[in-house]
Amino acid sequence: MAIKGNKYGAHRVIEPAGVLTQAAFKIDNDMTKLYSNEIICDVISLNIDSASFTQIKQACNNDVELIKDMVMGIVAERGKQQNPVTGSGGMFIGRVAYIGEDLKDRDLKVGDKIASLVSLSLTPLKIESINEVHLDIDRLDVTAKAVLFESGIYAKLPDDMSEALALAALDVAGAPAQTAKLVKPGDSVLILGAGGKSGILCGFEAMKRVGPTGNVVCQVRREEQVQQLLDLGVAHKVIVSDAHRPVELLDKALEANGGKEYDISISCVNVESCEMAAILPVRDGGLVYFFSMATSFTKAALGAEGIGKDVTMIVGNGYTKDHADITLWELRESEKIRDLFNTKYI
Amino acid sequence: MAIKGNKYGAHRVIEPAGVLTQAAFKIDNDMTKLYSNEIICDVISLNIDSASFTQIKQACNNDVELIKDMVMGIVAERGKQQNPVTGSGGMFIGRVAYIGEDLKDRDLKVGDKIASLVSLSLTPLKIESINEVHLDIDRLDVTAKAVLFESGIYAKLPDDMSEALALAALDVAGAPAQTAKLVKPGDSVLILGAGGKSGILCGFEAMKRVGPTGNVVCQVRREEQVQQLLDLGVAHKVIVSDAHRPVELLDKALEANGGKEYDISISCVNVESCEMAAILPVRDGGLVYFFSMATSFTKAALGAEGIGKDVTMIVGNGYTKDHADITLWELRESEKIRDLFNTKYI
Repeated sequence: MAIKGNKYGAHRVIEPAGVLTQAAFKIDNDMTKLYSNEIICDVISLNIDSASFTQIKQACNNDVELIKDMVMGIVAERGKQQNPVTGSGGMFIGRVAYIGEDLKDRDLKVGDKIASLVSLSLTPLKIESINEVHLDIDRLDVTAKAVLFESGIYAKLPDDMSEALALAALDVAGAPAQTAKLVKPGDSVLILGAGGKSGILCGFEAMKRVGPTGNVVCQVRREEQVQQLLDLGVAHKVIVSDAHRPVELLDKALEANGGKEYDISISCVNVESCEMAAILPVRDGGLVYFFSMATSFTKAALGAEGIGKDVTMIVGNGYTKDHADITLWELRESEKIRDLFNTKYI
Repeated sequence: MAIKGNKYGAHRVIEPAGVLTQAAFKIDNDMTKLYSNEIICDVISLNIDSASFTQIKQACNNDVELIKDMVMGIVAERGKQQNPVTGSGGMFIGRVAYIGEDLKDRDLKVGDKIASLVSLSLTPLKIESINEVHLDIDRLDVTAKAVLFESGIYAKLPDDMSEALALAALDVAGAPAQTAKLVKPGDSVLILGAGGKSGILCGFEAMKRVGPTGNVVCQVRREEQVQQLLDLGVAHKVIVSDAHRPVELLDKALEANGGKEYDISISCVNVESCEMAAILPVRDGGLVYFFSMATSFTKAALGAEGIGKDVTMIVGNGYTKDHADITLWELRESEKIRDLFNTKYI
């Protein structure tokens, strides 16, 4: 009978002791050991994190065979696909091969096709062979097995849309789902970096939530994005500004909100030093939600203190309950966003 | 008549344009220009940020005259005491010399002795002379003037305690004031790094708020701190554990809370890579409050996602309404904490 492992996978850590599998240097990728609270998948492909794959391609001069060797080497050494330079991983697509008895009541059966929504940097992985390297889309087709822990999150790939479309949205699933939970009727909401995938999905959710008395304002960098966002129906107003110039952005943002400060700002700007642009336009007692991974903790904390802003600043958690369902539902609701994603992001 | 400046001080930025004074390289420290929404102070002393002063002392080989020259040089070049290497500043103590007419309704008058609670890294400063250098307490006695903007925060120094005692508490004023606002009756609260100044003050506030059905558990590194915290009355229970070993800490923390996950964790651990120790013990839907400036935004965001934890993670804002009053009040309420601060932190 399978024994029960740690909920978070700590039983798979080899070194150093005491940490979880993401922080570990080496983890146990033995797929013949069965645990009662693990899921094992037959992996079809690895979507390598963009920063990691860029580094690997450069190190290997875009040579496919060298790339295969490098990835095989990383996984052989560490038991997981965690780039030693960038520290990042990616995600996998695969079919469920084993479900431990403690997880039998989940809405999942052997043979289901799923995407992992936890990073490869913490996922036990054993590769038999790398069958194809897709240099342009950061993807490796493989014959491999991977483990999902009891706490690991995943999404069943839907039947009513292409795999590529679903993955493009799931990649940013945290942001729109958090937006759906934070935004209330009547709120004024400022979305920074609104022209990208996560910004568009956040804008769509915010528009649904604020109701007739709310105001959703999107910030973009280029004039030609204004009409696009208005046509998509993801904003009441769109301002063109530079998030590195917070004072100018503040003026434009206030003008678009009848001179009033905002209840909520959501930062999807994926460049550094844009914390003040998200903090300045928000009222005392309001919320600043940082989804951007380029956010600096200290710049946010000291920046708000420096201007005496009593705002609640939230670290964008990539996971919230039902985030995959909420995000995929947006693609079903909006034909325009679906078309845009199909054209631009797959 | 004095003209009105920007609420956040943007009118004092010289270069680069578009940013606020903290991000600026050079700001205007002309004290003869009077603005209707600024306060000018006669500065008595500068408390240089610890990281900054360590760097300055090393660069000057602890030579007092060289330190004076270096600080005079920085302020002459930049218009503010912002260390070019560390980027940090410190705070000042001074007497109010001018209050712009737009700020006349504040509870402040010319001659009041105040401490600035915004960083010197964003504060216009003009030094006439550095009169004394206190190498051991990171302090310079000066003849100088400094500006507080309309958004700038400060605290009037109280009459009923020593200046040094008040400053020791004000230094960490954000954390206990945020704790006072977050913690509700019946909550279970885990405080990490509870043996330091901010941890003790947070524990004291949490104990006041949770009431008879709550549970406040403090984590420390050393066995001898256990009885000290219990004697101070800042915890129901104290656990000894290492925040770099989140799995072990989780087990001890759960045991101290009847096996249940916590409603709130507060991290005052001032070393890196302790994010998971704060996230793991909290229930889904609970709060994680990072006060530690050693917190990594990405480690927190990706860490919570990696273990599928639906927690709200808050960036510790050094400012919240009334934070100075709330914090100084603790010293009046608790003779034991006052004695400890007088013995250990001044």
